[in-house]
Amino acid sequence: MGSQRRLTSLTMAFIIPRLLCLVCVSVVCRGENTEMVNVVTERKAEESHRQDSTDLLIFIMLLTLTILTIWLFKHRRVRFLHETGLAMIYGLLMGVILRFGVHSPQDVNNVTLTCAVNSSPSTLLVNVSGRFYEYSLKGEFRDSKGHDVPNAEMLRKVTFDPEVFFNILLPPIIFHAGYSLKRRHFFRNLGSILSYAFVGTVVSCFVTGLVMYGCVVFMKVIGQLREDFFFTDCLFFGAIVSATDPITVLAIFNELMVDVDLYALMFGESVLNDAIAIILSSSIGAYQPEGDNRDTFDGSALLKSLGVFLGVFSGSFAMGAATGVMTALVTKFTKLRDFPLLETALFFLMSWSTFLLAEACGFTGVVAVLFCGITQAHYTYNNLSDDSKSRTKQLFEVLNFLAENFIFSYMGLTLFSFQHHVFNPCFIIGAFLAIFLGRAANIYPISFLVNLGRKNKIAANFQHVMMFSGLRGAMAFALAIRDTATYARQMMFSTTLLIVFFTVWICGGGTTPMLSLMQIRVGVDSDQDNPTTALDGVQTSTKQESAWPLRLWYTFDHNYLKPILTHSGPPLTSTLPGCCGPIARCLTSSQAYENVGRLHDEDTELILNDGGCSMYGDMTVSTDAQGVPTNSSSQAGVYSIAGTSDDPLDRELAFGGTRLVLPTEDPQEPLTSFPPPPPSPPLADPLRHRV
Amino acid sequence: MGSQRRLTSLTMAFIIPRLLCLVCVSVVCRGENTEMVNVVTERKAEESHRQDSTDLLIFIMLLTLTILTIWLFKHRRVRFLHETGLAMIYGLLMGVILRFGVHSPQDVNNVTLTCAVNSSPSTLLVNVSGRFYEYSLKGEFRDSKGHDVPNAEMLRKVTFDPEVFFNILLPPIIFHAGYSLKRRHFFRNLGSILSYAFVGTVVSCFVTGLVMYGCVVFMKVIGQLREDFFFTDCLFFGAIVSATDPITVLAIFNELMVDVDLYALMFGESVLNDAIAIILSSSIGAYQPEGDNRDTFDGSALLKSLGVFLGVFSGSFAMGAATGVMTALVTKFTKLRDFPLLETALFFLMSWSTFLLAEACGFTGVVAVLFCGITQAHYTYNNLSDDSKSRTKQLFEVLNFLAENFIFSYMGLTLFSFQHHVFNPCFIIGAFLAIFLGRAANIYPISFLVNLGRKNKIAANFQHVMMFSGLRGAMAFALAIRDTATYARQMMFSTTLLIVFFTVWICGGGTTPMLSLMQIRVGVDSDQDNPTTALDGVQTSTKQESAWPLRLWYTFDHNYLKPILTHSGPPLTSTLPGCCGPIARCLTSSQAYENVGRLHDEDTELILNDGGCSMYGDMTVSTDAQGVPTNSSSQAGVYSIAGTSDDPLDRELAFGGTRLVLPTEDPQEPLTSFPPPPPSPPLADPLRHRV
Repeated sequence: MGSQRRLTSLTMAFIIPRLLCLVCVSVVCRGENTEMVNVVTERKAEESHRQDSTDLLIFIMLLTLTILTIWLFKHRRVRFLHETGLAMIYGLLMGVILRFGVHSPQDVNNVTLTCAVNSSPSTLLVNVSGRFYEYSLKGEFRDSKGHDVPNAEMLRKVTFDPEVFFNILLPPIIFHAGYSLKRRHFFRNLGSILSYAFVGTVVSCFVTGLVMYGCVVFMKVIGQLREDFFFTDCLFFGAIVSATDPITVLAIFNELMVDVDLYALMFGESVLNDAIAIILSSSIGAYQPEGDNRDTFDGSALLKSLGVFLGVFSGSFAMGAATGVMTALVTKFTKLRDFPLLETALFFLMSWSTFLLAEACGFTGVVAVLFCGITQAHYTYNNLSDDSKSRTKQLFEVLNFLAENFIFSYMGLTLFSFQHHVFNPCFIIGAFLAIFLGRAANIYPISFLVNLGRKNKIAANFQHVMMFSGLRGAMAFALAIRDTATYARQMMFSTTLLIVFFTVWICGGGTTPMLSLMQIRVGVDSDQDNPTTALDGVQTSTKQESAWPLRLWYTFDHNYLKPILTHSGPPLTSTLPGCCGPIARCLTSSQAYENVGRLHDEDTELILNDGGCSMYGDMTVSTDAQGVPTNSSSQAGVYSIAGTSDDPLDRELAFGGTRLVLPTEDPQEPLTSFPPPPPSPPLADPLRHRV
Repeated sequence: MGSQRRLTSLTMAFIIPRLLCLVCVSVVCRGENTEMVNVVTERKAEESHRQDSTDLLIFIMLLTLTILTIWLFKHRRVRFLHETGLAMIYGLLMGVILRFGVHSPQDVNNVTLTCAVNSSPSTLLVNVSGRFYEYSLKGEFRDSKGHDVPNAEMLRKVTFDPEVFFNILLPPIIFHAGYSLKRRHFFRNLGSILSYAFVGTVVSCFVTGLVMYGCVVFMKVIGQLREDFFFTDCLFFGAIVSATDPITVLAIFNELMVDVDLYALMFGESVLNDAIAIILSSSIGAYQPEGDNRDTFDGSALLKSLGVFLGVFSGSFAMGAATGVMTALVTKFTKLRDFPLLETALFFLMSWSTFLLAEACGFTGVVAVLFCGITQAHYTYNNLSDDSKSRTKQLFEVLNFLAENFIFSYMGLTLFSFQHHVFNPCFIIGAFLAIFLGRAANIYPISFLVNLGRKNKIAANFQHVMMFSGLRGAMAFALAIRDTATYARQMMFSTTLLIVFFTVWICGGGTTPMLSLMQIRVGVDSDQDNPTTALDGVQTSTKQESAWPLRLWYTFDHNYLKPILTHSGPPLTSTLPGCCGPIARCLTSSQAYENVGRLHDEDTELILNDGGCSMYGDMTVSTDAQGVPTNSSSQAGVYSIAGTSDDPLDRELAFGGTRLVLPTEDPQEPLTSFPPPPPSPPLADPLRHRV
């Protein structure tokens, strides 16, 4: 509670380091009653250990209960309440019970010793009748005088260090998001996703901040606000609440098999969103004008904030990508795939080390982990053995599930167990208005701009769904609870909590009605490629997405990075110039030669769609329904590749054997449901069979 | 370091509770230099966080390096050094580097504040210019005056709280041991295993203790020992080092496919061993004669110790079994198997809650987790979906791998990073002699006694291998590091560390030569039942193991527990008396009826072998090589069942489709390699094909 530790870390990392002197203070007290002290100490430690076990047990029980109820809901196909919403409700109930139901005696553990000294060192040695006991700093303890709340001690016991969220619970969630990204659809909509995530989030943050500033000024005028609330605080609040968390919505999307592009847009946006929000909030924290007059504008501080933003983002990105690339190289050039356990362990450790590395270097671990996840999925995943592929996916799936439900349970609990809530009706109403406006300022203008370049427009009903589904979740909560030291921050935290509750329950529960209201088509097989590509002309649908920097990147990735880092892709011997022959042969694995005939990854589609004919091979091998290879020439190959371009991860997820995509399934339906789709000619049928 | 917390917890739990008074001491100090304190505090917290990340990163890197080297060794089939030995070597190197290589400046984090007060509360509030900072007790800090070691601060940083081992690292290892127990072979040798584990470990502990006491007395005579070293300390040391850790040996056994019975004996012994050692050590801790004269004999204290031993063992056993049974019931009566993720998460959480529950109730979590693992494998595993079966196994396999290698790396590191080593040559030589004698006093007499009842004798070469392979590992280390507060305990810790190093490197590395020296047969298919059963007569080979209490248990388990808790086993409708019809129908799942024709679990064999003919069905369905079911009558069914009686877990581990056991493989080789096996008649061939 109330520790500003990490939040200011980025600030600190960029300020000129100051010399720190060792603070050594000797405090001499009267020693008395030294007998029985040992026994008492042991007894206390034992009690405390038991108490900790019990507290953790409460959470485990909550999660178990949640799992059973989730099962019941899934079993009965109840969709109005998602598991995360359920976890929150159970947490809430537990919070009520702990606060009002249980009356623990003023307990044994509450042994408080007050030393008034002039520093707060990270380690404290206490001399108890000649024996030294070591204490470590837990954080600032607020409001130690006012034990007004019943069971205050017990409630404090079930309160976690907010850093637990950032260092233990968020990383698996974020890594899983990156690792389970459906990359084909993600890359196809990359331009739009980046626009929403980068531009949109910044816009949303500033709009929310401005609205909140208006609200705060109004509150000051009517005398509702006693303490300071600066513009930077408002912006900080904007950054916190602009991290959207789509898990509730996406779970429903997944179940109903909503249009893949809508899914990709929302998922991609919210994943990158988190990264932007986290860095944005720390950059705003870094905006500290000189001389403590925090409400004046300071150009150099702004520049510094911008520098922090760019520096931390690029640093974290580089760290994540670097570890991913390193893992890919290791898994490629060792035959570790013969030992799936070793491979999985290595994968896990390398992914974790990204987080630690970034934190140790002063970057943001969570962001690094996200990009590490994407890199691992894009490159390393191709090198893993089949066993490890499923192991790693399942491992992170379980970790993600547990962490997610834990956070949401804890959120529910916090509403009652947190003892410094500041619920200000004006602020809360203002905040709801602000996030609504902020989200609108993100979605509608950006969609308009993006649609200028997209052939495959994002329709109005898609925009409404994206607007409606901008829930707030784990990341907003974690950012808000990280610092609850000041009155302003406490008010933000309480308000964020309410926003999360509201959006998860109301917006999450309203997703299914919203989808039918907006006439979004459901029941789309995500593996079934959107065939408008084939109909409307090869070059059009992804034209805007494949703007030249992206196109350049795709080509580079496909021709050089993928072959170097994985067993897939074209052999380097065919893509590198002849002079690099020996290196190319050395770096190309034997499997790459085997794969050369049947290149199917998402890049192929994009490169081919860009009108350049394939530059590495004119013949693609496809198979007909009986699995007999059929050679098709270049133009036919376009369709064939387009039809089979799912990456291994996507294909793995579908996990079907031979899937027949029959023309009767009417796959030509356009991206939106109006106008009604024309019937399609049976085009290149045998080529579109999947193997 | 040096916390006696948990060790004495059991003592505390059984002593008459004393009233504890709240110790509230106010310490007033001179406040000065209050400026910059905030910035300094934040900076320090930030530095400390980075340092923590770096420390953890060091370990992750060590593990990564270990994994890569393990791969190299496996790839090149190097067997003289096991991965755990390797992890230790890397840890050792890292320890040397940290201690002598790196010269960190007397660092920023080392801010020490000394308060001399008369108690060591678990929470300390420090008043820094009006703001309160919360500190939590980490433990006793020994030897704070003598910073004689270079890099003392840094070394202290990479030192973990010993409770981490007990609360985080050991549970997955122990659970995995229980969960991966090959139950068929385990139960076949249950009598012998229990003898070795219970009687043998206690004998070994006392023998080691007595030898050590002699050694200590000798050391006092020649003036080598300055401080107190009581008989209870010697016994405590005996308990610590009687926990054998077979992972190194068993990994080699597994790889070489050593005789399954030898494997089962060693694995079973060492798994239960750990539980006994852990409870034994706490019971000895509970033996505290009145009035601080610890070297006199006190009958009531001995009785109390015995009570603690039995109470903790039975309590932990009950907790573990109860959670396992509850999980089995939940997975049986919900259709959770439709959602493997939920199922896996539930399984994980329930297993973890065993640990917490036991700790919260004052029992031993690690022991509870062991029995929970066995129960889960025996009952719950049968109810899981195929997906969850592999998920749970793989999840715990990865956790076990990581935890194990982490502990062994840390062990290596500790040799140099621990700052209070007491290496006493006399004590060390005495200890090696003592563990040798203790192990011998365990194996040979118990084997002799056990052989009196066994038809299928444990041969002398088996005994030698068991003697030789009694390595010490993670558990001995964890028990030793738990309390390093006194001189005696420090000496024990250092000596235990050396014992672990020696046994893992020398005995572990010598396993392969030892096996060939002792002419133990290798290359045995663990799924292939030992056919001496079929040859020597049905009733003989497991006769001794199936003494009447065990037999009673098997029958009860097979007829009532398995059908109630799982989908397998005979339907309750056929085993319960007719009057319980409605209850039986309610508790029997539809799958049980389907399974009734082909009952193959380990119990069947035992019940049939006990001479009683099958009491639930006379027909068994076997399949020939083409997978066509063949009905065989009762007597032929015995062979068929004996041939296919592997439990699902074992079968899963083998993971072969149809396995043909051809008579040319000479499966009639007896348990030991002398005398040479006679050629076998081709007996009941089509029935012994596996499906």
